[in-house]
Amino acid sequence: MSRALQDVATGTLFGVALNFQGLLKQRIAEFEQPPYQKPPLKPVLFIKTPNTRNPHGAEVVHPGHGDRLQPGPALGVVMGKSASRVSAAEALDYVAGYTIVNEFSLPEDSYYRPAVKAKCRDGFCAIGPELVPTALVTDPHSLAITLYVNGEVRQQNSTANFVRNIPQLIAEISEFMTLHAGDVLITGTPEGRVDVLPGDRVEVDISGLGRLVNTVVAEQPGARS
Amino acid sequence: MSRALQDVATGTLFGVALNFQGLLKQRIAEFEQPPYQKPPLKPVLFIKTPNTRNPHGAEVVHPGHGDRLQPGPALGVVMGKSASRVSAAEALDYVAGYTIVNEFSLPEDSYYRPAVKAKCRDGFCAIGPELVPTALVTDPHSLAITLYVNGEVRQQNSTANFVRNIPQLIAEISEFMTLHAGDVLITGTPEGRVDVLPGDRVEVDISGLGRLVNTVVAEQPGARS
Repeated sequence: MSRALQDVATGTLFGVALNFQGLLKQRIAEFEQPPYQKPPLKPVLFIKTPNTRNPHGAEVVHPGHGDRLQPGPALGVVMGKSASRVSAAEALDYVAGYTIVNEFSLPEDSYYRPAVKAKCRDGFCAIGPELVPTALVTDPHSLAITLYVNGEVRQQNSTANFVRNIPQLIAEISEFMTLHAGDVLITGTPEGRVDVLPGDRVEVDISGLGRLVNTVVAEQPGARS
Repeated sequence: MSRALQDVATGTLFGVALNFQGLLKQRIAEFEQPPYQKPPLKPVLFIKTPNTRNPHGAEVVHPGHGDRLQPGPALGVVMGKSASRVSAAEALDYVAGYTIVNEFSLPEDSYYRPAVKAKCRDGFCAIGPELVPTALVTDPHSLAITLYVNGEVRQQNSTANFVRNIPQLIAEISEFMTLHAGDVLITGTPEGRVDVLPGDRVEVDISGLGRLVNTVVAEQPGARS
């Protein structure tokens, strides 16, 4: 029914910012001020570096030091072959399948800066539990996304509310860069991000894809090296 | 005298923005306005994704379509082992050696947005020609960096003018993320970036590290796929 995720999703992790309609609406006022003057015309991308990879079941270390930590439930699209200048009409032919991503982040109050420090701490990108092939997902644009913290629903949304759908994202990104087999598009986190604390059990459920479970732990002084 | 670069510098390519004193001075006025109000306190990082890798001697495709292309001469620091919360005093022990990077980019008039589209086109990060071990570089903070376009000097600077030196960069970055063996720190491009055009021969010379040579070519319609 599914292939082992770790054998397939080995490439670059591309995050797409502002890809939920509700989130974009919240930010419109900000975008009408300097320096932007207008909302972004193209997908705003960021990278989750390889040190952020974290499997299903693993611990996510809270940054501590007064910083806040927020889960980022998202549908992951795993590329099946190299895509360069692919049209939206043929884009899904380049997809191997779907998985769940929890794109952890420090809160960001603006989109002004490259987000490496907020988004690329060790273990800040949980992925899994498995890769579900495209053939088993009837419509990737009608999947319910639910975030549970300690068993309580904290965010609920649907991939029906994407600003750009999956073919549009692949077309617009592959226009300027080649996406390779194994690369993962993190298609966007919905509005309403919440804070989590050490001890919290964080679960992302996407209909048909299963549930990705991780636990937040406190940082042990000096333990990271 | 040197190890094969492609066997060593296989990790993530981390760019450091605004790491030359002259460049930071040029930008100070911008940083004193909204949304920043003040200059950045920490290194501003960006990522060059794996599709940007390009060896010594290879062609770099000009984006065309009215876009401009600018070389970004920089010293590359190749990590030799994993570094997590390393102090500046011990940081150089984690370095395998140095190489030359030409971090091509579309011009960026602001630092407001994650720079993936400007910095991550295919082939936009030339690296080479070789890795020079740390033992052979007496002082990495006194290296002359020279950019030649068609044999003419177009940029000249020195690693003596870094805002943050190499130990400081490693300490500040490894405080929040683990740097792995094979990761490359692109330590910054000096002020005065110039435009290049198809047909141009672009060379970056760093004293003691050799010369990285690439040629700009025009994009062939539809050739990228």
